[in-house]
Amino acid sequence: MNEFELINRLTRNLPTNDSTLVGPGDDCAVLEVGLAGRWLLFKTDAVVEGIHFEAATDRRKVGHKALARCLSDIAAMAGTPTHALITLGLPEGAAVEQVEAMYEGLNALARRHQVAVVGGETTTSPERVFLSVALLGWVEAGRCPLRSGAQVGDAIFVTGDLGGSLVSGRHLDFEPRVEEARWLAGQFPIHAMIDLSDGLAGDLRHVLRASGVGAELLTDAIPISRAVPAARGTSGDIAVAGAGGLGRNARIEAALTDGEDFELLFAVPGGVAVRLLDAWKQRFGELRLSCIGRITEGPGVTLRGRRGTRPLTEHGYVHFQKS
Amino acid sequence: MNEFELINRLTRNLPTNDSTLVGPGDDCAVLEVGLAGRWLLFKTDAVVEGIHFEAATDRRKVGHKALARCLSDIAAMAGTPTHALITLGLPEGAAVEQVEAMYEGLNALARRHQVAVVGGETTTSPERVFLSVALLGWVEAGRCPLRSGAQVGDAIFVTGDLGGSLVSGRHLDFEPRVEEARWLAGQFPIHAMIDLSDGLAGDLRHVLRASGVGAELLTDAIPISRAVPAARGTSGDIAVAGAGGLGRNARIEAALTDGEDFELLFAVPGGVAVRLLDAWKQRFGELRLSCIGRITEGPGVTLRGRRGTRPLTEHGYVHFQKS
Repeated sequence: MNEFELINRLTRNLPTNDSTLVGPGDDCAVLEVGLAGRWLLFKTDAVVEGIHFEAATDRRKVGHKALARCLSDIAAMAGTPTHALITLGLPEGAAVEQVEAMYEGLNALARRHQVAVVGGETTTSPERVFLSVALLGWVEAGRCPLRSGAQVGDAIFVTGDLGGSLVSGRHLDFEPRVEEARWLAGQFPIHAMIDLSDGLAGDLRHVLRASGVGAELLTDAIPISRAVPAARGTSGDIAVAGAGGLGRNARIEAALTDGEDFELLFAVPGGVAVRLLDAWKQRFGELRLSCIGRITEGPGVTLRGRRGTRPLTEHGYVHFQKS
Repeated sequence: MNEFELINRLTRNLPTNDSTLVGPGDDCAVLEVGLAGRWLLFKTDAVVEGIHFEAATDRRKVGHKALARCLSDIAAMAGTPTHALITLGLPEGAAVEQVEAMYEGLNALARRHQVAVVGGETTTSPERVFLSVALLGWVEAGRCPLRSGAQVGDAIFVTGDLGGSLVSGRHLDFEPRVEEARWLAGQFPIHAMIDLSDGLAGDLRHVLRASGVGAELLTDAIPISRAVPAARGTSGDIAVAGAGGLGRNARIEAALTDGEDFELLFAVPGGVAVRLLDAWKQRFGELRLSCIGRITEGPGVTLRGRRGTRPLTEHGYVHFQKS
């Protein structure tokens, strides 16, 4: 049983109440609290030493990453983050300087987003540091893009460049796309949005499953990060024929599956795609925005490339056939 | 540097904002969110295998305890809990039945308190299960008892019986005093309140420090749980003279310092003490309520017993002098 199957099983019969608009299964919970025009967003996320960062990782970056992951989830709901609580698991005798450095990184990011850090707990965690962040935010009522809203014919966009985040260290110092998401939801009818943590292929599937649709991606349009090494010696590459093809296909695969990009993926009506790209360029000129495909009736994801159309397998990998 | 010193150091320069009414240093953060008559409460807390529960502990009780600890903090603010998020750290290959049992215990308690469980994350924690709960709640604006409100002359009360919680297993299945706290704050001018997690002596000191006052406790009035063994073989007992004294003094010490009682300690104007005791008995007849002393100018805590008055040391232990 993988993580997703386990979560599905655990979330089947959770207690709920009338003020819960969106429970498990989206980037944040969405709550109706009796405020005209606003919904409350609620999210938690944890980073664990040896899993999300190494023992030797600069602790400032650990603090940054822990909060940035949660901010990225608030961004995916087009929300404004406001208040955070920190739960810190520490081995006995943890160096105070290291703990302070973790808070420094976290606090600096919080200040940039006007997020108040309103408390913290420390607990003993004998083998590994862990850092769990709980975050609140607000979004305008009715303007919160869910995973479930994608419609056939929508254009699919991603911000930034994908792949190589773990290799390049970007996963430790990325800037969550809060401002960009707020602008998008304010200007355009965003049907669905998600932040890319599991990898483009996996996160797109979350949207497709929630929306009951499929997608066709244009392989040439997928923005591959320069952090993706030009050649990757994975066994899957052997199946790919042609000079230079090996590197390229493996790089597309990296962009589809590496994970921890923390960029935004969203779906908008196809008719506004060009206007959106234009307005984006005026507003966020330095940050790439790519239209990578469209929502189809599905099911599943197909990749349209130079040599035709191929299905993307359930595990996210591109299975290239000999042609 | 102990946990409290570390927290003090970390919380000195945290980012804040205008909507934060109470930040670090109380049982919950208190937030102003623009709702007339209501404040938002926000709390997180984690339990770790081998620290807060054993590897062999019934997982239903682990789930219960994780949520109950947070509920107890909402109770200490006289709040009504509403929404929880769960962050679960699991070793590879953790048995699904164990995880489901954890959720069963947590969900059952959530349902009793009409708390919606609105999401969860799972992450890898190679050596130990950990379970972090984030909880939201509401309290009537201006009716939230802080640690800082105790005044000289106030009567000090505690609910229930103290000590022996870890030995008896009560720390795994206690019922948080949410209903009792709501009733108290609705009926009486509660100046200060805290839930007893570190032990009566330690938690009382949190209140005294925040309020800038002292306290005198009546040793005979401290409600000692039957879970406290009748004789405790600690070296401190040797200093106590007299037949039978050993057991009694050690039991008082247990009630003062054992911790994890999750009862309420609160301060009310001395003038309402008798009326409060009477009304409590009508309403919660089966649950003991004890007036254990009064707020003084201080500093510090003194214990008034059969043989006079003694200071309570900083570490919470009763240092009995030979008389």
